[in-house]
Amino acid sequence: MTPALPVLPGGVTIREVGPRDGLQPETPISVTDRVRLIEALMVAGVRRIEAAAFVSPKAVPAMAGAAEVLAAVPRHAGLRYTALVPNLRGAELALSSDVDEITVTISLSEAYNQRNVRMSITESTQEIARICSAAGPTPVDAVVSCAFGSPYEGEVAPDEVAELAARLQAGGCTSITCADTTGMATPRRIAEVVDATGPGIALHLHETRGTALVCAYAGLALGVTRFDTSVGGLGGSPFAAGAAGNLATEGLVAMLDDLGVETGIDLDGLLAAAVLVQDLVGRPLPSPVAAAGPRTRLAETRSGEER
Amino acid sequence: MTPALPVLPGGVTIREVGPRDGLQPETPISVTDRVRLIEALMVAGVRRIEAAAFVSPKAVPAMAGAAEVLAAVPRHAGLRYTALVPNLRGAELALSSDVDEITVTISLSEAYNQRNVRMSITESTQEIARICSAAGPTPVDAVVSCAFGSPYEGEVAPDEVAELAARLQAGGCTSITCADTTGMATPRRIAEVVDATGPGIALHLHETRGTALVCAYAGLALGVTRFDTSVGGLGGSPFAAGAAGNLATEGLVAMLDDLGVETGIDLDGLLAAAVLVQDLVGRPLPSPVAAAGPRTRLAETRSGEER
Repeated sequence: MTPALPVLPGGVTIREVGPRDGLQPETPISVTDRVRLIEALMVAGVRRIEAAAFVSPKAVPAMAGAAEVLAAVPRHAGLRYTALVPNLRGAELALSSDVDEITVTISLSEAYNQRNVRMSITESTQEIARICSAAGPTPVDAVVSCAFGSPYEGEVAPDEVAELAARLQAGGCTSITCADTTGMATPRRIAEVVDATGPGIALHLHETRGTALVCAYAGLALGVTRFDTSVGGLGGSPFAAGAAGNLATEGLVAMLDDLGVETGIDLDGLLAAAVLVQDLVGRPLPSPVAAAGPRTRLAETRSGEER
Repeated sequence: MTPALPVLPGGVTIREVGPRDGLQPETPISVTDRVRLIEALMVAGVRRIEAAAFVSPKAVPAMAGAAEVLAAVPRHAGLRYTALVPNLRGAELALSSDVDEITVTISLSEAYNQRNVRMSITESTQEIARICSAAGPTPVDAVVSCAFGSPYEGEVAPDEVAELAARLQAGGCTSITCADTTGMATPRRIAEVVDATGPGIALHLHETRGTALVCAYAGLALGVTRFDTSVGGLGGSPFAAGAAGNLATEGLVAMLDDLGVETGIDLDGLLAAAVLVQDLVGRPLPSPVAAAGPRTRLAETRSGEER
């Protein structure tokens, strides 16, 4: 029997969350620089970008100026901007800024949900339904955090994920993203959740335990075709101890390029955007591909390397 | 159709290379401390340990005292110690130190092989055959570096890997380990090499581009059951720019535990060994599981985490 790779989808959609999820825990960066980053991502071929969060600038200073960001970014057909909103008021602001998609977050962990949006899970589903009504034709994606385990309550049953997803869709959400907020996902948990929800979900993965890429690969083999990633691997949750960065966009694109799975994104352009984001945050990025370069980049033979 | 994980082997053999490959690029650590590390690994259930390298202490100061290490480590049935040797003289020293296995390295990259052992590939195969003769009943494992690409020559054809493996086995090597020295492996390259060589090879993976765990998972799904890993994710090659650490033992064991694949190794014991190795090298380890703990470790709820 010849060993073979699993059958994989021909192409996937990557939603770049670096300008929002990636920069949110960082020292605030100016609107101008955030727009420069979005432009660099667009040049690399990224077509779906989480660009801003309409949250209190007092609570999240790094996300101040959301309307200014959305007013300044380049617009063209096929380029879709997402904004995160915590409540109906945020959704109204996002809609008046001409967003193409709204993301809302809700957690399978009661403790995490309280910390993140100061509501119970039930209150959150009600608020999300109001947001969906206000959004009208604008799609609302619900990001379900702690979908593969909670740092507070431990294991989460896959059926709970599927039930909450169904409730959110009944309330008007157009799509569901399952987030591994604290790196508790494994290939087996991915399979169990996809089994319960179907492969129509998106995956939002973190590198807390170094499992984001293998979980993406496992999800891909199960038919998942939508992924959230962050350029340079930036990101993390302020509400979960030890949470590390998001799956790096360039890490996923490098693997998918090699597997022949289309992303529409140019790896070299992405690495240029990673250099920019590194300049903006002023420290080395967690992304290994950003540090080492693509696998096709050969070493220069210098005599000094020998000993 | 219900999505399902690939069928995986019931158990795998992990060869811990931390005391040799992991510590080799570090500031030298005493024989006593290296023996302490090996004891901690043994307590965790590790049964195959690359414990020493019989190389010139002038060229590789961190590996000085190989015979002393092997004289001091605990011995019992089922516990197997491996030593790396660069040539026949090293093999003779290793054999007189009562090793259970010898590893030799040879590269598919002419340039890398010259840098690593100052021989051509042909000269290396001849020296390895002499080592196998001298070893008699002691098994000799050939670690083929740059098996998934070379930082100097670029792509390596899977057939070349299989041909070199066959030549080495004809020369007396008892097993073959394919090493991804500079992180050029991908799930597809793993599949191509396993297709050419058969799943009897071992995989020795590096995190240079963050792909070690996904490549191990891909290899596992193709029937590979032997892996080299390094506690804490230490390691790297001095002859390849940008080479990063080995696949962390605790990262692989954590994933395999969750997948129900037996390793015989206790994750908590391994994390204790990682704490020791971190103390010995005096800096944070690259391993995410060593830093974040197992996925079952819950967060303490502290009011200070809220904002």
